[in-house]
Amino acid sequence: MEVQAVDYLAEERGRARFDVEAMKVAWAGSKHSLEVSDRMSRLVASDPVFQKDTRTMLGRKELFNNTLRKAAHAWKRINELRLTEEEAQMLRHFVDEPSYVDLHWGMFVPAIKGQGTDEQQKKWLTLAYKMQIIGCYAQTELGHGSNVQGLETTATFDPKSDEFVIHSPTLTSSKWWPGGLGKVSTHAVVYARLITDGQDHGVHGFIVQLRSLDDHSPLPGITIGDIGTKFGNGAYNTMDNGVLQFDHVRIPRDQMLMRLSKVTREGKYLQSDVPRQLVYGTMVYVRQAIVADASKALSRAVCIAVRYSAVRRQFGSQDGGPESQVIDYKTQQNRLFPLLASAYAFRFVGEWLKWLYADVMQRLQASDFSTLPEAHACTAGLKSLTTSITADGIEECRKLCGGHGYLCSSGLPELFAVYVPSCTYEGDNIVLLLQVARFLVKTVSQLGSGKKPVGTTAYMGRVEHLMQCRSDVRKAEDWLNPSAILEAFEARAVRLAVSCAQNISKASNPEEGFAELSADLVEAAVAHCQLIIVSKFIEKVQGDIDGQGVKEQLQILCNIYALSLLHKHLGDFLSTSCITPKQGALANDQLRALYSQLRPNAIALVDAFNYTDHYLGSVLGRYDGNVYPHLYEAALKDPLNDSVVPEGYEAHIKPVLKQRFRVSRL
Amino acid sequence: MEVQAVDYLAEERGRARFDVEAMKVAWAGSKHSLEVSDRMSRLVASDPVFQKDTRTMLGRKELFNNTLRKAAHAWKRINELRLTEEEAQMLRHFVDEPSYVDLHWGMFVPAIKGQGTDEQQKKWLTLAYKMQIIGCYAQTELGHGSNVQGLETTATFDPKSDEFVIHSPTLTSSKWWPGGLGKVSTHAVVYARLITDGQDHGVHGFIVQLRSLDDHSPLPGITIGDIGTKFGNGAYNTMDNGVLQFDHVRIPRDQMLMRLSKVTREGKYLQSDVPRQLVYGTMVYVRQAIVADASKALSRAVCIAVRYSAVRRQFGSQDGGPESQVIDYKTQQNRLFPLLASAYAFRFVGEWLKWLYADVMQRLQASDFSTLPEAHACTAGLKSLTTSITADGIEECRKLCGGHGYLCSSGLPELFAVYVPSCTYEGDNIVLLLQVARFLVKTVSQLGSGKKPVGTTAYMGRVEHLMQCRSDVRKAEDWLNPSAILEAFEARAVRLAVSCAQNISKASNPEEGFAELSADLVEAAVAHCQLIIVSKFIEKVQGDIDGQGVKEQLQILCNIYALSLLHKHLGDFLSTSCITPKQGALANDQLRALYSQLRPNAIALVDAFNYTDHYLGSVLGRYDGNVYPHLYEAALKDPLNDSVVPEGYEAHIKPVLKQRFRVSRL
Ligand SMILES: Cc1cc2nc3c(=O)[nH]c(=O)nc-3n(C[C@H](O)[C@H](O)[C@H](O)COP(=O)(O)OP(=O)(O)OC[C@H]3O[C@@H](n4cnc5c(N)ncnc54)[C@H](O)[C@@H]3O)c2cc1C
Ligand SMILES: Cc1cc2nc3c(=O)[nH]c(=O)nc-3n(C[C@H](O)[C@H](O)[C@H](O)COP(=O)(O)OP(=O)(O)OC[C@H]3O[C@@H](n4cnc5c(N)ncnc54)[C@H](O)[C@@H]3O)c2cc1C
Ligand SMILES: [Ca+2]
Repeated sequence: MEVQAVDYLAEERGRARFDVEAMKVAWAGSKHSLEVSDRMSRLVASDPVFQKDTRTMLGRKELFNNTLRKAAHAWKRINELRLTEEEAQMLRHFVDEPSYVDLHWGMFVPAIKGQGTDEQQKKWLTLAYKMQIIGCYAQTELGHGSNVQGLETTATFDPKSDEFVIHSPTLTSSKWWPGGLGKVSTHAVVYARLITDGQDHGVHGFIVQLRSLDDHSPLPGITIGDIGTKFGNGAYNTMDNGVLQFDHVRIPRDQMLMRLSKVTREGKYLQSDVPRQLVYGTMVYVRQAIVADASKALSRAVCIAVRYSAVRRQFGSQDGGPESQVIDYKTQQNRLFPLLASAYAFRFVGEWLKWLYADVMQRLQASDFSTLPEAHACTAGLKSLTTSITADGIEECRKLCGGHGYLCSSGLPELFAVYVPSCTYEGDNIVLLLQVARFLVKTVSQLGSGKKPVGTTAYMGRVEHLMQCRSDVRKAEDWLNPSAILEAFEARAVRLAVSCAQNISKASNPEEGFAELSADLVEAAVAHCQLIIVSKFIEKVQGDIDGQGVKEQLQILCNIYALSLLHKHLGDFLSTSCITPKQGALANDQLRALYSQLRPNAIALVDAFNYTDHYLGSVLGRYDGNVYPHLYEAALKDPLNDSVVPEGYEAHIKPVLKQRFRVSRL
Repeated sequence: MEVQAVDYLAEERGRARFDVEAMKVAWAGSKHSLEVSDRMSRLVASDPVFQKDTRTMLGRKELFNNTLRKAAHAWKRINELRLTEEEAQMLRHFVDEPSYVDLHWGMFVPAIKGQGTDEQQKKWLTLAYKMQIIGCYAQTELGHGSNVQGLETTATFDPKSDEFVIHSPTLTSSKWWPGGLGKVSTHAVVYARLITDGQDHGVHGFIVQLRSLDDHSPLPGITIGDIGTKFGNGAYNTMDNGVLQFDHVRIPRDQMLMRLSKVTREGKYLQSDVPRQLVYGTMVYVRQAIVADASKALSRAVCIAVRYSAVRRQFGSQDGGPESQVIDYKTQQNRLFPLLASAYAFRFVGEWLKWLYADVMQRLQASDFSTLPEAHACTAGLKSLTTSITADGIEECRKLCGGHGYLCSSGLPELFAVYVPSCTYEGDNIVLLLQVARFLVKTVSQLGSGKKPVGTTAYMGRVEHLMQCRSDVRKAEDWLNPSAILEAFEARAVRLAVSCAQNISKASNPEEGFAELSADLVEAAVAHCQLIIVSKFIEKVQGDIDGQGVKEQLQILCNIYALSLLHKHLGDFLSTSCITPKQGALANDQLRALYSQLRPNAIALVDAFNYTDHYLGSVLGRYDGNVYPHLYEAALKDPLNDSVVPEGYEAHIKPVLKQRFRVSRL
């Protein structure tokens, strides 16, 4: 049958007013990054072991086994090709399936690096780097997640044998959730309450061997299992999130991670002189990676929805001509383009976080801890904000694809299901925003004291101006002025924070006041974090950017990002009198004009992500726009299509049609 | 091991300040409805054929087959027990698995009822009522969903043989999505362009037999299949949404549904004298059912999240005592309680829609079509609003359960995956809101002309007052006054609609103006629909309600519903000057106070839904709150736990650990 959409996107691509190759570099961060990611993504896409289009049809065991196979194959290729660490990381990323490997490299190794002594690092990292042991990160318990200090697992020092006894005293103390734990890991960093001589020293990390290196069976006293099916078909079900119970398991004393504190042979608990603030470094690192992942996940979803919105036509046919592309509807643009802008915004704030991490590490070396609380709050907030918007954004992209978005072959259901736990792990997003809020309230309370707010809170130093300034926007185009945007966002953030601080101070007790007002505090924290992203986007656009038309496009995206937020949170801006209703309406007018400017460039802007069809994993998001025949092709692969008359016909359909109700119970 | 949470919810239940049994009646609508739904839900829960706790672990074929078995068993029980239609419908609802049965009763039968002549009804409904034929509703095509007028399938009258020739001329004309089509249906109502004598009369419905009643094989010229895996594990994968192509399939002339128009033996196309508006009746019916389902789905999610939030403890332990229940955190309340209030709000607006349907039907009988456009807009808007909020609300409830919400055993992932297509089918939610907006703009434009707006738009008749009124709220409690709430919501809705209408009138051409402003128009439509729900909730609370404390609780819920919306859409209220920033802040203060009043009643308010543990299908939402041991138990059932050492160990784990890279490619 004839297919008309085949060349459709080529025409769209011809309309772009900027140099797509240069935008690819801007998105990737550098020519080098683009080259590596391009090469690795093609390597994965061209290898049949890494194909993933039957993923959503497999049962749990088959799915899991297939992931093991891919992980082993990836490791083999990494070794065969002698890939660099950068290349290896990219390759693993493009394999695009959660597996024990993520936790091994992403949590187990960094935990030992961050908390192990030099000696411990030498011993364990040597094994881990070669994957001669496979490790996971066992912190969360059935009964305790967010409140790490409430963990119940105990590690009791036995001076007689110079060992720790690791034990799970209750059902709720079972370790529950650690990825890679259920079926694969041979070792774990286990968090447990350290007890010496009857005294509880709080939660510490221990390296515990879980399984025999001979036959993979759990060691005595250790019970391990998988915690069961999770959201989605493939999604995180490729991962063996596990449950673990200890029955008085003994480990040598030197398997406590002793960089920050230690237990001596005599059972004395001692703090080392290494500064505690070191942990911030790891946290900043992990969170910048999560923000980078947010931009990847959101851009994937947006790429699919933008391309399909250009392919899909609905209504508006005149004189028997083709119908309108749905991307031309303003409602579609109003839902889609701010997400496209957010993907770019998150990409650039993620890049900046990389810089922040380097800065933090440098300062730590120099024992300068002054920026740490700010860096900690900032990364907590950005993790929360970017993951929440990305999760919602993926689902919005799915809806933007109408009915077909509901098919797994669209790629969007799986992308959503695999992404959403980012809102929960590495800090529940609301708990994180409350931490940001606490920091903001503290910063406000110190404003009078001469202590100058630093980094992303520096704007609060201009509190007097920001509390009384009025936007001088008079016409829609005035909103294109970055300083108009910045001032409005700064004023809003400061005013919300100050108002919260004032209301808390009215409470009889600040803790109670904080608890009572916590919903408002979360809004103030969001305002602060949005400001960070807006300001980093503006900085980016004001810097050097190569390529014809690239800067102009980023400028448009930056303005869409900011003005769509302004519209979404109009209540904040108006209730704090940062802008007038008239100015709010002008911002909205400008936003519509920006959508029209973006429109012809939309396809090229998602092409700039440089995603392979393999990585996208979506019939709707195909580079060539040839959607319909491939939807058909994907459908035919479903196991239900093995036979035209379904297996259950004789047993369960015929008796209904023939009014014979001897329905079997089996 | 010891479990401490077992009696926890009993204590919570003791804190309720109202008569739960009376609230059950208020929720169900009547004592009779409560009795029937209670009886049917227990009947299903106690029947082993209807168990569903392994659903998310089954492969597609197994899953589908199991659903066929349940559907047949349900039909058997319905017949054995000689259930009434009301009882049968309830029973099917509590089986809680999408299947061909839904489309047979919910779309095929009503389509014939609505569009068939008396003769056609007699013939086909007799067969359908006994399920001697099984039917589906085949409208959507691969290339056309929202724009029904763009369908491509043709039905060409052949006067020689007195037959229609049904044909799929292109790939994109394949029927795609109809539930029950892929594997089960023997018949379909097929929508196709009627062509007589070379003339295209637009889209009409035809009854087409698809499969042989002898052996279930597709009839000649008919190609059928399943369209593949959809979002979620179980979810809609229990349904055989299908694809269908016709290759010149012939059907007798009397299988065109001829109530509204017909083709004569000579091939003449004639309109009948039955009023076209009849179709509105069916639409109102279908949409009121969708709104009723929204309240069910949202209340299920809320029930799970409320109960688990009372079980879950995190932080705030003092002196080694238990930690705080997370339901006591204001942020948790601020996310959860408005959803609880929304579930009740949707329930009552759904009840009102039932009345509206009866009213519409009565008027149709009397050839009074005056309220139809308003009823149509109103149901379109309420379908859109309630399904969007419910979909987002289920996911929010999942996040409110922290990590454990991500497990399928929480019930929430499946509830989400099975629910979300409601935002797309029976009218894409944005397309529907644009219809509402069109109606509002028209209503505004007629305000001067003396045409009095009716029904849910009656408030627009007071446009002069509403355009200039100012809220007289001075203290937080003033917001408890229903007339303060109503006036603010009415003023906001009218002002947004009027402002849109004015802006459109500035455009050179109204259609272009409408298109350009469509994002704003959607916001105006949302404001109008929220007003409807708020006002129906207020009416409900002002009516007769039995039971100690019941009315008081509903009053609290109603106020939470309205004030949380006011806060969420503060930008609307402020930009239209309906309220001042100060009044907005007072509303927020009042909202917090209402949360505190709701808190002790929260568990009892979800108990009032009267859901069995079977129906909830959630370990986290268990009635007894005994969550942790059952999480464990559910996990152990996962196929991955069949063996402690996973199947892939020798092939894919050992080679990594032992540094042997001969990884098999199979
Ligand atoms: C896919 C996935 C992978 C994971 N991988 C790992 C892993 O490898 N290793 C590991 O150790 N763990 C892992 N986890 C566990 C994860 O870290 C926890 O789920 C997470 O920390 C959240 O904690 P929780 O589940 O206890 O949520 P809870 O804290 O119980 O959250 C429940 C609700 O309470 C609210 N809440 C909690 N505290 C407060 C407060 N103080 N104020 C206001 N509200 C509050 C939350 O906002 C939430 O709405 C994983 C989880 C998932 C889902
Ligand atoms: C689970 C499920 C079950 C279904 N069951 C059936 C069934 O039994 N029988 C049947 O016939 N069909 C069925 N359908 C199909 C369903 O009715 C269509 O998917 C639905 O009508 C939406 O149409 P679409 O998919 O073409 O979306 P599209 O219209 O292509 O939507 C894509 C995007 O375009 C936007 N858009 C479209 N038109 C406009 C406009 N004029 N202005 C602004 N924006 C616009 C939409 O908002 C959306 O964002 C089912 C679908 C699903 C998902
Ligand atoms: Ca599955």
